[in-house]
Amino acid sequence: MQSPVRQFDFFFDFTSPYSYLAAHRVDALAERHGARARWVPVLLGAIFKHTQALPLTALHPWKAGYSVMDFGRSARLLDVSYRHPTVFPQNTVSVARAFLWLQRTQPRAARAFALAAFAATFEHDQDIGRPDTLAAVATACGIDPQAMAAGIQDPEVKAMLVATNEEAAAKEVFGAPMCVLDGERFWGLDRLPHLDAALTEARA
Amino acid sequence: MQSPVRQFDFFFDFTSPYSYLAAHRVDALAERHGARARWVPVLLGAIFKHTQALPLTALHPWKAGYSVMDFGRSARLLDVSYRHPTVFPQNTVSVARAFLWLQRTQPRAARAFALAAFAATFEHDQDIGRPDTLAAVATACGIDPQAMAAGIQDPEVKAMLVATNEEAAAKEVFGAPMCVLDGERFWGLDRLPHLDAALTEARA
Repeated sequence: MQSPVRQFDFFFDFTSPYSYLAAHRVDALAERHGARARWVPVLLGAIFKHTQALPLTALHPWKAGYSVMDFGRSARLLDVSYRHPTVFPQNTVSVARAFLWLQRTQPRAARAFALAAFAATFEHDQDIGRPDTLAAVATACGIDPQAMAAGIQDPEVKAMLVATNEEAAAKEVFGAPMCVLDGERFWGLDRLPHLDAALTEARA
Repeated sequence: MQSPVRQFDFFFDFTSPYSYLAAHRVDALAERHGARARWVPVLLGAIFKHTQALPLTALHPWKAGYSVMDFGRSARLLDVSYRHPTVFPQNTVSVARAFLWLQRTQPRAARAFALAAFAATFEHDQDIGRPDTLAAVATACGIDPQAMAAGIQDPEVKAMLVATNEEAAAKEVFGAPMCVLDGERFWGLDRLPHLDAALTEARA
């Protein structure tokens, strides 16, 4: 019997800077272990309703200022471009639905679209919450923007995003990015080395 | 003119698990760069009064449970013993004052005492907030426990702990462990690699 491909969840929000940075790493990490990262978009706003956590903009200024500095510093250490967006946080309901619609209808296009959407926000200082930005990203990825706009309004696609947030709550996901491997949570860009170690142990 | 030894602050609280883990790393990190870690005890309770942050025990259970798990996981990856203390958090006013008293009167004994106090809490499940635990740690380190008890009550030593907390606030320290190098903050065990990179850049 062939063993199934090992898989971990990669919960992310398109407006989360550390999600953006982790998105550049999780697939390579998975590949090193012959595993697969399952990309699951969520809305931090929905998650924070469960946990009563505060968004960055509501944090004490000592911590908020540190965080913005640390986004840039972490990006430099990973050699990834980062420009803190003028609009922050952004409304990611539509881009998350667009990603889920792509996963269902054109799965091979989904990752490239996600990375392009992240780049629009965190490299080119655009607001992915705007329909015109989203359409431009789709077009640049060879995706029909009108079909995508219709997909975003599809009740089944809307239900998929409700479902990913419910799955996150069931797995006690309280932030993003968060990877989950066999029920074990790895919160933040800085816990990818811990996930790497867990995948190594699992193979040994 | 000889260049002065480069130095960074290591703000820590004796009841902070990641401070305990970082305490096993900061001196070696500093030495690799010919630099010096200046150990500065603070009280997270005093810091959280500034920032309105919540202690671990007041966090949402999804996050609190994750944190306790992550303390042990992080320790395993560093190959450091860790047992989550039955009494948590602990009152660290006396142990912090004892450390400051040692820094002034027997500076060579201070680091070993700090590591022994951390070990009492995070390896041997003792409560460093109890006078008998503190006295036993002192004795084991060859320090006169009665002289230490008197030192803890010395108004000048009490003022030193007020001063370290004020210094932390002035440097916008909002958590522990936090290292500060030339005004740049590095929060958490997981930012020691960032500090390492900053010290490398500074030498280059």
